[in-house]
Amino acid sequence: MNRAALVLAAALLAGFVVPALAQTLRSPSRKLTLRFQLSPSGEPTYALSFGPKTVVRPSRLGLVLQNQPGLAQGFSVAHIDSSQHDDTWQPVWGEVKSIRNHYRELAVTLQQPAPQGRRLVVRFRLYDDGLGFRYEVPEQPGLTYFTVQDEQTEFNLPANHHAFWIPGDYDSNEYTYSTTRLSEVNTTPIEAIQQKAAPNRIQTPLMLKSDDGLYVNLHEAALVNYPALMLNVDTRSFGLTSQLVPDATGTGAKAYLQAPEHTPWRTIVVSDRAPEVLASKLILNLNEPSTIQNPSWIKPQKFVGVWWEMHVNKGSWNYADVSNIKLATTDWSQLTPNGRHAANTQNVKRYIDFAAKHGLQSVLVEGWNVGWEDWAGNWKEEVFDFVTPYPDFNVDELHRYAASKGVQLMMHHETSSSVTNYERRQDEALRFMKQHGYQAVKTGYVGRIIPRGEHHDGQWMVNHFVRTAQKMAQQQIMVDMHESVRPTGLHRTYPNWLASEAARGNEFNAWSSGNPPEHETILPFTRLMGGPMDYTPGIFQIKLERWNPTANKGRQVHTTLAKQLALYVTMYSPLQMAADLPEAYEQHLDAFQFIKDVPVDWDDTRVLLAEPGDYITIARQAKSKDEWYLGSITDENARQQQVKLDFLRPGQRYEATIYADGKGAHWEQNPMTYQIRKQKVDSKTVLKLQLAPGGGTAVSIKPVGQ
Amino acid sequence: MNRAALVLAAALLAGFVVPALAQTLRSPSRKLTLRFQLSPSGEPTYALSFGPKTVVRPSRLGLVLQNQPGLAQGFSVAHIDSSQHDDTWQPVWGEVKSIRNHYRELAVTLQQPAPQGRRLVVRFRLYDDGLGFRYEVPEQPGLTYFTVQDEQTEFNLPANHHAFWIPGDYDSNEYTYSTTRLSEVNTTPIEAIQQKAAPNRIQTPLMLKSDDGLYVNLHEAALVNYPALMLNVDTRSFGLTSQLVPDATGTGAKAYLQAPEHTPWRTIVVSDRAPEVLASKLILNLNEPSTIQNPSWIKPQKFVGVWWEMHVNKGSWNYADVSNIKLATTDWSQLTPNGRHAANTQNVKRYIDFAAKHGLQSVLVEGWNVGWEDWAGNWKEEVFDFVTPYPDFNVDELHRYAASKGVQLMMHHETSSSVTNYERRQDEALRFMKQHGYQAVKTGYVGRIIPRGEHHDGQWMVNHFVRTAQKMAQQQIMVDMHESVRPTGLHRTYPNWLASEAARGNEFNAWSSGNPPEHETILPFTRLMGGPMDYTPGIFQIKLERWNPTANKGRQVHTTLAKQLALYVTMYSPLQMAADLPEAYEQHLDAFQFIKDVPVDWDDTRVLLAEPGDYITIARQAKSKDEWYLGSITDENARQQQVKLDFLRPGQRYEATIYADGKGAHWEQNPMTYQIRKQKVDSKTVLKLQLAPGGGTAVSIKPVGQ
Repeated sequence: MNRAALVLAAALLAGFVVPALAQTLRSPSRKLTLRFQLSPSGEPTYALSFGPKTVVRPSRLGLVLQNQPGLAQGFSVAHIDSSQHDDTWQPVWGEVKSIRNHYRELAVTLQQPAPQGRRLVVRFRLYDDGLGFRYEVPEQPGLTYFTVQDEQTEFNLPANHHAFWIPGDYDSNEYTYSTTRLSEVNTTPIEAIQQKAAPNRIQTPLMLKSDDGLYVNLHEAALVNYPALMLNVDTRSFGLTSQLVPDATGTGAKAYLQAPEHTPWRTIVVSDRAPEVLASKLILNLNEPSTIQNPSWIKPQKFVGVWWEMHVNKGSWNYADVSNIKLATTDWSQLTPNGRHAANTQNVKRYIDFAAKHGLQSVLVEGWNVGWEDWAGNWKEEVFDFVTPYPDFNVDELHRYAASKGVQLMMHHETSSSVTNYERRQDEALRFMKQHGYQAVKTGYVGRIIPRGEHHDGQWMVNHFVRTAQKMAQQQIMVDMHESVRPTGLHRTYPNWLASEAARGNEFNAWSSGNPPEHETILPFTRLMGGPMDYTPGIFQIKLERWNPTANKGRQVHTTLAKQLALYVTMYSPLQMAADLPEAYEQHLDAFQFIKDVPVDWDDTRVLLAEPGDYITIARQAKSKDEWYLGSITDENARQQQVKLDFLRPGQRYEATIYADGKGAHWEQNPMTYQIRKQKVDSKTVLKLQLAPGGGTAVSIKPVGQ
Repeated sequence: MNRAALVLAAALLAGFVVPALAQTLRSPSRKLTLRFQLSPSGEPTYALSFGPKTVVRPSRLGLVLQNQPGLAQGFSVAHIDSSQHDDTWQPVWGEVKSIRNHYRELAVTLQQPAPQGRRLVVRFRLYDDGLGFRYEVPEQPGLTYFTVQDEQTEFNLPANHHAFWIPGDYDSNEYTYSTTRLSEVNTTPIEAIQQKAAPNRIQTPLMLKSDDGLYVNLHEAALVNYPALMLNVDTRSFGLTSQLVPDATGTGAKAYLQAPEHTPWRTIVVSDRAPEVLASKLILNLNEPSTIQNPSWIKPQKFVGVWWEMHVNKGSWNYADVSNIKLATTDWSQLTPNGRHAANTQNVKRYIDFAAKHGLQSVLVEGWNVGWEDWAGNWKEEVFDFVTPYPDFNVDELHRYAASKGVQLMMHHETSSSVTNYERRQDEALRFMKQHGYQAVKTGYVGRIIPRGEHHDGQWMVNHFVRTAQKMAQQQIMVDMHESVRPTGLHRTYPNWLASEAARGNEFNAWSSGNPPEHETILPFTRLMGGPMDYTPGIFQIKLERWNPTANKGRQVHTTLAKQLALYVTMYSPLQMAADLPEAYEQHLDAFQFIKDVPVDWDDTRVLLAEPGDYITIARQAKSKDEWYLGSITDENARQQQVKLDFLRPGQRYEATIYADGKGAHWEQNPMTYQIRKQKVDSKTVLKLQLAPGGGTAVSIKPVGQ
């Protein structure tokens, strides 16, 4: 039986009911039900239920086009394709070894009346853990180039759910989460990172919890050639409406498209168990397979970096303390060094030595290249050239030195959001990287975008991020993007795109009001639904006055030390930083052992306990090894967790090393106390974990007696 | 005496009068007088007179800044520097062998009250043929990064002059000129090329003629890192006010600057003789010297091109007749060729053969690269990649073939104004060019700019054009920019920037209402004041139905054949196209001899007769040769011109070959008749030229008896 026949047979077996105006589709295990219907005025609508519970009430679908009639009403159903799909695929790296992609699909071809007879396809994929749908504009006469003015996608919720949200800033995701009822969404009191939009506009991934026990996550998958999706909340009806990020023209244009083209998938992950939301692979499944034929050069890794010492005011990115520099004309060798420039050859060697000694793969160096003297905040086009080291950074010597120690240097391209400047210099920057042996790059997009008027989350920048992933892939370069648009699962398609920041990272603890202890219990339910985050865990020296008593007065990370370890498990990423200074780790080498041990690639993952805003406990099996690692974190409340180790191989005995909060530990008053104990365990063991307020526990579990 | 001492001595000798609020400066021969004065509210003003005649009445100066107080009033004079300057320099190529730069300078440092005490310098350079002035913001505390919201430069004219103007379109200069009184300026009835702005907004270079016999040209010099200058006309007071081209943000921002920085020079060329306006080197003098150390690779040249045959519907740029192409995914080898694609290997060889046979240096080929199927009008980012030839264009074979014939191929980069796309591919495009032996490139910017919202004439694009000239210079590539901002003399600084279009070229005659016969008598007084134009003269087959009776029905170039020859002299450019098809020239090889003979680089130039909108007669001496070439053109009126050849070397006999309109010639009814006669001449000869309506005469003058 060939594939087409299989699809047809599956469709027949599924027994779809096909009346003229309404379609019903059930998920493979019939947990979820989708109902598609045309309104009397020919508006497409959908509704989603989980068993008897309503997930989404009937909600409209459609596209509004600029300077021409929309694709939102006046439709009849021209054609319906239904099918089911079930296969399994292996990610290049990930939380699990293989992923099942099992869904039923409904593709509704809608048509407007003659003479234009314009067509729009709405394609639904219904999984047992949620729904994905997208708009497709097929190739057709009279509709080739078009501009999306607005997308009219509604998510009409049935009740006043709890929501975990951040404001709809078109240029930043670096907010702490607000937890309110939908009726209470109001971004007005929140200090803007770049620029907040309307008071009721919030971002996806949006995590929701209903009073009747449903966990619902709204996001999107495969964001390519389109702006990011935000949501306008009707605080009285609990209806959410899509808000696309606009372009620079001021005309309200959102996306310039050419048929055939489709939007990203709009995703609704839903379960009555919070851990299942974290375990969902729906967003990955809705992305395209990897475009990289031979991915052997892509290596999940841990790294240290000349980075945190600048955040804690021990060193500086800039080489000289001057405030008026022109890239094209400055003679960098003539500047007076400020004596605090961290990215100097000697200091970088110290990090290389540390990485080599402890088996960490890479050393990130920020501030290595000229331009940091007045790099931010001036909306200036020519800031960095990406190829000129400061006079005290000997790139050749460091390349040789790192290679001799078996360590990689990681490139850093801060663009200061002058993206036109970056793009026109990217080829030369890549030549420089290849010439000096760099295999990975961290990019940064701090500040307002150039092209001026564009947004970080608009179509133009979305395309830039994807293009950069592609360009780096062509050169076999891994990439970690900071201040990018938040991920939507594209690391399946571009597995060299190891991680992004695109949320409020650990760094905020260094120089702002910081991240509340609950922050890391929310991120996996929101930002991480789209993909890995370079959160930069592993801060051991939690009281920052140690590094600079004046500048850091009263500053600390809002965590216990043990929680920092647990984050390596709860915050999945194939790229994990050991973010603190070597001298901080050298004070606590017993605890650092966990960071040395913990893998960054996994064969299996079990989300054991999870509640957004409260706690998360996850266990993961190391890639190709019978070793497990467990992380458990809590918000500001102390908790006792009982963890069944029934995922261990029956009959095998293991030694668990438990890195726990010390007696009296507390994220604020006593964050650095921890205890390490070893315990023999097997698949019948129930581990009792005691988490301090704002604390956590990390456990490594290795087989014994083999 | 060192240079500083010389300047000081000159200043003392000049005997400047320095009262607190008013300054008077006279040009070297005292023809022109500048008066600078602060108004009672501390506004800087200037006025200019030519002998007793007022050129500019007192007019305000100043800069308005965004989000901070302006630099336009509240000033006192902090400091005055005055000096004079006299030297002579040699352009890499040009109309004359050497250029005298002789001016008196007044630099007024203005200061606002403490505590800010912000400073602005207005620098005036007064020549005998005009005035240049610019704003300079020196490095100073509290004013490093700033945004120019508006420039408040006035040119208050004393009367209702005649003006030769085009509408203030921020994206195009490709208009025919309107000739009206200032009071009658109104762009409303004029069909927009891209988008007209306010009804009274017009462009520079603006040519004016007063009733009392003054010829005044307003423009700018050295436009770098700043938007182009346009002018708002007060049709009642005859005051002109600067209007800078805005950026994409919609905030009215015009220029993002970093001190120390200066604006371009605002230029006022003035004379009581029209020919002296054309002969002025003021704009070149106000530009910086060449940045190219060894310019031996820069070669003024003539070229033919696979180009006009597309304009006259004989061939096509595109390879296939399809209207929906995606650069990234199309398999070009699978397209069905339309059979009319002009840039095919065989046809290009025909042009190479023709160029080689007739001693023309280069062959431009447009439509060689994939993407022309739906390249224009869609505001699409990915249109061309600049490195992929169509299947029928064998770049390697053509490179070898051209080289074997001693001919260069000229590259073509049409960007479709997707400039972000061009910039990110420019490095690769340059590698392709170097690999295949290209030494020159013609660029094009048809359509709306991407970054969307930016304008052709805004700061961002101005920087792009300059950056492109610089980038090409680094690779020893000559460049010819079409649809660029109009030139401002930057070819002095970047002599590899041979020419620009940036006005309504000959091509408009092929497919629009065309250019009226007066057009070429105005261009030298307007567009060409800033630099050479690639006007593409030399159309011999004036009735275009010859090439495609259906598509070109009734179409013709608005010229006589002889006038096309004269344009090679009257429209100065170091890059001149022989724009017609080889088969057109082969019908008239006697006339084509002038195009073969006429140089593109000169030792001397004499503007013999000129009146904007009416006629121009120019004689030029070939580089390093005792040969002269004369061109004389008229508008729609027949004229008899008496031309004294007193520029010839006394005592030397010459043979003049006179290419004149034939009997009964007329641009519309009988354009292709011409006569060629030879005549012995010397420095005492007065040539009588009979110009037909819309006609012209070209003359080559070569010494005999040597």
